[in-house]
Amino acid sequence: MADDVFDVIVIGAGPVGEIAAARAVRGGLSAAVVERRLAGGECAYYACIPSKALLRPMGLSAEVSRMPGLALRGPIDTAAVLARRDETVSGFDDGGQVSWIGNVPATFVRGHGRLAGPLRAEVTTPDGGVRTLGARHAVIVATGSDPLIPDVPGLREARPWTNREATSVQQVPKRLVVIGGGVVGCEMSQALHALGAQETTLLVRGDRLLGRTEPFAGDLLAKSFQESGIDVRFGRSPTRVERPTPDDPVTVHLDDGSTIEADEILVATGRRVNVGDIGLETIGLEANGPIAVDASMRATGLPDGWLYAIGDVNGLNMLTHMGKYQARVCGDVIAARAGGLPDDLPSHRDSADYRGAPQVIFTDPEVCVVGRTESQARADGFTVRTVEYDMSAVEGAYLMAENYTGRAKMVVDEDRRVLLGVTFVAPAVVDLLHSATIAVNAEVPIDVLWHAVPSFPTVSEVWLNLLEGYGL
Amino acid sequence: MADDVFDVIVIGAGPVGEIAAARAVRGGLSAAVVERRLAGGECAYYACIPSKALLRPMGLSAEVSRMPGLALRGPIDTAAVLARRDETVSGFDDGGQVSWIGNVPATFVRGHGRLAGPLRAEVTTPDGGVRTLGARHAVIVATGSDPLIPDVPGLREARPWTNREATSVQQVPKRLVVIGGGVVGCEMSQALHALGAQETTLLVRGDRLLGRTEPFAGDLLAKSFQESGIDVRFGRSPTRVERPTPDDPVTVHLDDGSTIEADEILVATGRRVNVGDIGLETIGLEANGPIAVDASMRATGLPDGWLYAIGDVNGLNMLTHMGKYQARVCGDVIAARAGGLPDDLPSHRDSADYRGAPQVIFTDPEVCVVGRTESQARADGFTVRTVEYDMSAVEGAYLMAENYTGRAKMVVDEDRRVLLGVTFVAPAVVDLLHSATIAVNAEVPIDVLWHAVPSFPTVSEVWLNLLEGYGL
Repeated sequence: MADDVFDVIVIGAGPVGEIAAARAVRGGLSAAVVERRLAGGECAYYACIPSKALLRPMGLSAEVSRMPGLALRGPIDTAAVLARRDETVSGFDDGGQVSWIGNVPATFVRGHGRLAGPLRAEVTTPDGGVRTLGARHAVIVATGSDPLIPDVPGLREARPWTNREATSVQQVPKRLVVIGGGVVGCEMSQALHALGAQETTLLVRGDRLLGRTEPFAGDLLAKSFQESGIDVRFGRSPTRVERPTPDDPVTVHLDDGSTIEADEILVATGRRVNVGDIGLETIGLEANGPIAVDASMRATGLPDGWLYAIGDVNGLNMLTHMGKYQARVCGDVIAARAGGLPDDLPSHRDSADYRGAPQVIFTDPEVCVVGRTESQARADGFTVRTVEYDMSAVEGAYLMAENYTGRAKMVVDEDRRVLLGVTFVAPAVVDLLHSATIAVNAEVPIDVLWHAVPSFPTVSEVWLNLLEGYGL
Repeated sequence: MADDVFDVIVIGAGPVGEIAAARAVRGGLSAAVVERRLAGGECAYYACIPSKALLRPMGLSAEVSRMPGLALRGPIDTAAVLARRDETVSGFDDGGQVSWIGNVPATFVRGHGRLAGPLRAEVTTPDGGVRTLGARHAVIVATGSDPLIPDVPGLREARPWTNREATSVQQVPKRLVVIGGGVVGCEMSQALHALGAQETTLLVRGDRLLGRTEPFAGDLLAKSFQESGIDVRFGRSPTRVERPTPDDPVTVHLDDGSTIEADEILVATGRRVNVGDIGLETIGLEANGPIAVDASMRATGLPDGWLYAIGDVNGLNMLTHMGKYQARVCGDVIAARAGGLPDDLPSHRDSADYRGAPQVIFTDPEVCVVGRTESQARADGFTVRTVEYDMSAVEGAYLMAENYTGRAKMVVDEDRRVLLGVTFVAPAVVDLLHSATIAVNAEVPIDVLWHAVPSFPTVSEVWLNLLEGYGL
């Protein structure tokens, strides 16, 4: 017998798990949410939230530098920025999140949760005890992911920073080496450089930053990095790392025989899903990668249909907002199935992960992407036509900044005349992206988009230029 | 016989006339564009462009004031802002615009153009000569509007400022009285106050700023004005104005018996369409208001169907981007009709003026509106449900600014579950508006909008909150 029985057990109280529980409860079910670390998850303490708190002053400072008539008193006040960052992560106290869960209302269980056979979980509590929970309808795995440390001799022993240490930085290192040209590598290089790192070196294995985006995105970003004094080295990987003691500088040996000495090394080379110690073996699943799910977030590997996986752990997408979206789908569909209601409404199926997941990268310039890039669209077999536009030619951009730099691209499915993807690379475009997210996900025909008139004089007029470039 | 014959004659070389000519030429026609003032129009020299050049430093300065870790060196450098404003209006030299028209290619004719019977125009050229132009297919009137000076004793003699003098300001008046709480009154009060006016008084006849928008828009803006020291007086009108000589201060007598002394008075009480001296009488039309048009921009008052009117002069909308949109419709439909092609494609009809014209007001906070307000939607007979959301509760807003203030509202047509209108009042939302412009104009069902996932952590997540508030 389980100690307690709930309609739904959620393992993982990040934003994704929290929202799934809340939606299930809204649907009339009871829920327990289990978390071994901080309620609120990686996002709230070590990822999206603190990184944006660190990046916003940099972005705003860059905007000021491009506006005649305004000047900053001096460099960014790093202490003030770190203090606000501390506020945004609630000083690493999850009391507010635990209260939020209680108000859902759902039951928060602190401890390491593991599956323990069908519809059952065991929680190892902080005092070392074990509590068993039973689920009447579903168990949702929302255990997220952890940073991946690549197998480079000496790297692990050198106590490298990951997103966790970078976003919770207390003392900005004077000399910083960053490994990895993806989102975390780019965002944190630029943030820490703006906050006081004097020698920032970014090592990129490939020949481009942000390799999964349109090529011009990485190119524009690399140009901005170089102008701000960040040393970006393409086609370079570390072969060996030395750090005699944690207080020593770190020496990074590169594959071209050169070395870099730095005060800290930040590893940003990807993440691995947290499936290793969650009891998958007790229900006959192997813990060798993401938990595959159908569009209702139900695990496809189990015949009985009571297991769901959402967020990073299902391998669909590692973005918080997509995990939260999956959580809404999942919580709603579990409630529908538990109540014997129709479970096939549009809101019960994930379409956005397949059609148009958006991503924003809060660098300067910002990189904002939704849907497919040109190469993804071609690989997926669509009949593709693309249009690009130099955003500095938009009158609204010229009014917003001197020496504005930006570029936009749309990828059109010629067979259906709908957008497959849109990319904006420019300052202050994170909220412009949502127009593209709607256009792509709602598959608004471009002949209808033509009647959505952008306001003059705003940067949004780039939409008009793109559509005119298409021939409208 | 006309001196020259073109397929299309356009009277008025503002952005609207220019674009109509360009679209007609793209469709294979020849065009002449006549302008008595500066090619480029009111917008380029005395309205949208310079006003945004004056406003942007203020908006950015306000953003800095809300971001810990950044501080400005001092107040806005007014001389630098005015210098950039001069650059944005090309020093009132229209050479660039005239070249642009030449490159269309279209023929630019400088002078006062008037209709002179069917398919014919007379141009009084700067040297006093008269040139007659003939049109094979169409004449397009795009003569715009001029500021309206209300009949207040002494006001006209006091040489009041209008948008023209305010946007081309060389010396910011220390004491300024503004009459009118609409867009121009609000934008220019705030811009000039930020650029050095010390006593700024805004007289509003009604009880709210921006009377045509959702009530909370004017309320939030009034609060911001009061916090910055602008003296907003509701329910107050001038009854008499005195200014012995143009060098004297101006004394404004109000309807409560009080007086205000100021260095300049700015009148922003609306505009009147320019139909008074354009020869309408030669074709049997009366010049007593806007030229009524059908959805293809053709004047409904003439049986022969060769006259078109676009932009301010047709009374549909006084926004530059809507005039430019009408110009695209108009130029395309004229080319189609001239070529004997189908003239009823979707791009040949104005739908946006009826469904969802957007407007952005570049104040702090910005006021961004598309489609119908709640009261307009109810007056139009829709079955309405609305949702409002306090944008300061959006996590992306909290990361963007300390003490962020903003509010959003959506107006839903319950019969069709589509949006009729959206309002955002908050800092830096002008480009967020385009998402709503697409949703409203494409009539995207709200159940589909649910799958357009806003990125975390951006202000765009207000969309999620609005839809959740609706019950999704």
